[in-house]
Amino acid sequence: MDRYDLALIGFGGVNRALAELIRDRGERLRSELGFDLRIVAITDLRLGSLMQADGIDVAQVLAMRAGESFAGLVGGDAEARNEYVIRNSTADIVVEATFTNPLDGQPAVSHVTWALESGKHVTTTNKGPIALAGAGLKSLAAEYGVRFEYEGSVLSGTPILRFAKQQLAGAGLTAVEGILNGTSNYVLGRMEAGLSLADAVAEAQGLGYAEADPTADIEGSDVQLKVVILANELLGANLTTADVERVGISVVSAEDIVAAATQGKRWKLIGSARRLPDGTVTGRVAPVAVAADHPLQGISGATNAVKFETELLGDVTVSGPGAGRVETAYALLSDIIAIDSSVRSGLVATSAV
Amino acid sequence: MDRYDLALIGFGGVNRALAELIRDRGERLRSELGFDLRIVAITDLRLGSLMQADGIDVAQVLAMRAGESFAGLVGGDAEARNEYVIRNSTADIVVEATFTNPLDGQPAVSHVTWALESGKHVTTTNKGPIALAGAGLKSLAAEYGVRFEYEGSVLSGTPILRFAKQQLAGAGLTAVEGILNGTSNYVLGRMEAGLSLADAVAEAQGLGYAEADPTADIEGSDVQLKVVILANELLGANLTTADVERVGISVVSAEDIVAAATQGKRWKLIGSARRLPDGTVTGRVAPVAVAADHPLQGISGATNAVKFETELLGDVTVSGPGAGRVETAYALLSDIIAIDSSVRSGLVATSAV
Repeated sequence: MDRYDLALIGFGGVNRALAELIRDRGERLRSELGFDLRIVAITDLRLGSLMQADGIDVAQVLAMRAGESFAGLVGGDAEARNEYVIRNSTADIVVEATFTNPLDGQPAVSHVTWALESGKHVTTTNKGPIALAGAGLKSLAAEYGVRFEYEGSVLSGTPILRFAKQQLAGAGLTAVEGILNGTSNYVLGRMEAGLSLADAVAEAQGLGYAEADPTADIEGSDVQLKVVILANELLGANLTTADVERVGISVVSAEDIVAAATQGKRWKLIGSARRLPDGTVTGRVAPVAVAADHPLQGISGATNAVKFETELLGDVTVSGPGAGRVETAYALLSDIIAIDSSVRSGLVATSAV
Repeated sequence: MDRYDLALIGFGGVNRALAELIRDRGERLRSELGFDLRIVAITDLRLGSLMQADGIDVAQVLAMRAGESFAGLVGGDAEARNEYVIRNSTADIVVEATFTNPLDGQPAVSHVTWALESGKHVTTTNKGPIALAGAGLKSLAAEYGVRFEYEGSVLSGTPILRFAKQQLAGAGLTAVEGILNGTSNYVLGRMEAGLSLADAVAEAQGLGYAEADPTADIEGSDVQLKVVILANELLGANLTTADVERVGISVVSAEDIVAAATQGKRWKLIGSARRLPDGTVTGRVAPVAVAADHPLQGISGATNAVKFETELLGDVTVSGPGAGRVETAYALLSDIIAIDSSVRSGLVATSAV
């Protein structure tokens, strides 16, 4: 029986959901997957740091109340000593789930760097490191003989990156296009029902779908980061956000929506990456009035979807949740399963027993 | 550089398409996948048998005209000596692509058995062996330390079996439901456009979608075999076709279709397998009037789709082609990639160089 010791960096919704999975489904995961998961370190801006090499009592930590800190616990500290914990904890895998910084990816890029440099595998749901520093971090992982996994960076738990890399290998992938942001998709749906953009955004905020500042969702910069990831990961490109043209849904008017409906079309915010005949790869984010026979037209609300265009198979589409704390925590678990699979096949070393 | 030598059993549309892929994309597959493919044996009811341990000239064989036989070639024979070729060829992998016998799976079950017994990996697109003799063949593969792969048995090249087993591992799969037959889906779509069942079937036959005897498509027995495969492979059941209740689309009348449309619903032939709270798994094939918010409603024409219901991720749906000679040949290629991956990770032995 293998066991992987985890260090959780950031203890917000997603890493808490992962801790709950370990608390509630640990036995079942062990019997289904053949390995145990144990949390040996946690850091969090509000809670501080906690390191216990023989395993943290997950139920106790999850029961802590607002305002409490790790300072009162053995191995605890009121400060979030991220670098110290990442470099010095006994974890096999660092689970990075801090916020996405769309400008330079920090501090998550440093968290990932420290982890890889200290010989630890990394799983993250954070778009920043992979969209903004992916190539460097991947070489670092190769250099240190560890895995860097980030399935949750696009479509949260819906496993489209690994699907395309593994299940579509050899099929000749030429393009990827998708509905990659649930908030803007929800807002467009409510605008079809007659709401103004502002009212639809306010409703999405009330439901917890949209951030207080909805710009990244509405103006397409969230999708832009995901297009960079899709282009670079799946089409072998080397794009930056500056290479990806971006138009948000604020350009879509009530009249546009009515006009599309009369033709059986629906407006969707589409992120796409495409290999051109000359081999170059282009990326784009823009609202598109999608026809009824398009596989993305029926994707409503908070659901996300990606259509893969291939030479041998034609079009294959995967749809599923694009957000949610448990769904996103599942992305971390799926990364850990991939790490385990590499460890078992001898592709990477392991410090796990 | 690894190389896999193949024996093709049956040289109809699908195995011809695989041979064309090797002829036309061999170089590219080698650079993308890291292995070479070489055909060393072919058997076919009309053409006979051909064994050439140093590699068959694929272009020459593909250029043979109707009425020619392998008898005129070195290593050739006018008779399809399936057992002799499967047991004695130097192939690493036997590619079984003969017709599906829905009663007992023969002769494909014997083909697979002979291949596994002689230490050869098997890939097949044939539903028969896996739906009707899957458990026995899987133990045989385990006993001989070889792989038995059959991604193309459901949804042809759209890789849903491996997607569910690998990418949804640990997510808690509870149910699978899908549009698993393109012909019946096409026919229902044409009935929505006003055609009678008989006229829609005749049209599908004219387009090459439906067989001369369309019963297996229209009355759901094709889907029934696929439900057995989904239930047994993905939900750990041990169903036979007799356990799967089956109702075909012939019960759907023009009035039913109009009535559904007035409620925004569309009739689809749904194959499903579901784990009940007591742990038992049930399978069913029946036409269902599907609502607009259901991910299968928008799946039209020859496209197939499967919705996976999971505990951690909610619903995830994959749609793509469910037929086609190149698409189905891709399923064989994806099986060979999976075999290669097992060989590389040391999970199975290989006689390949």
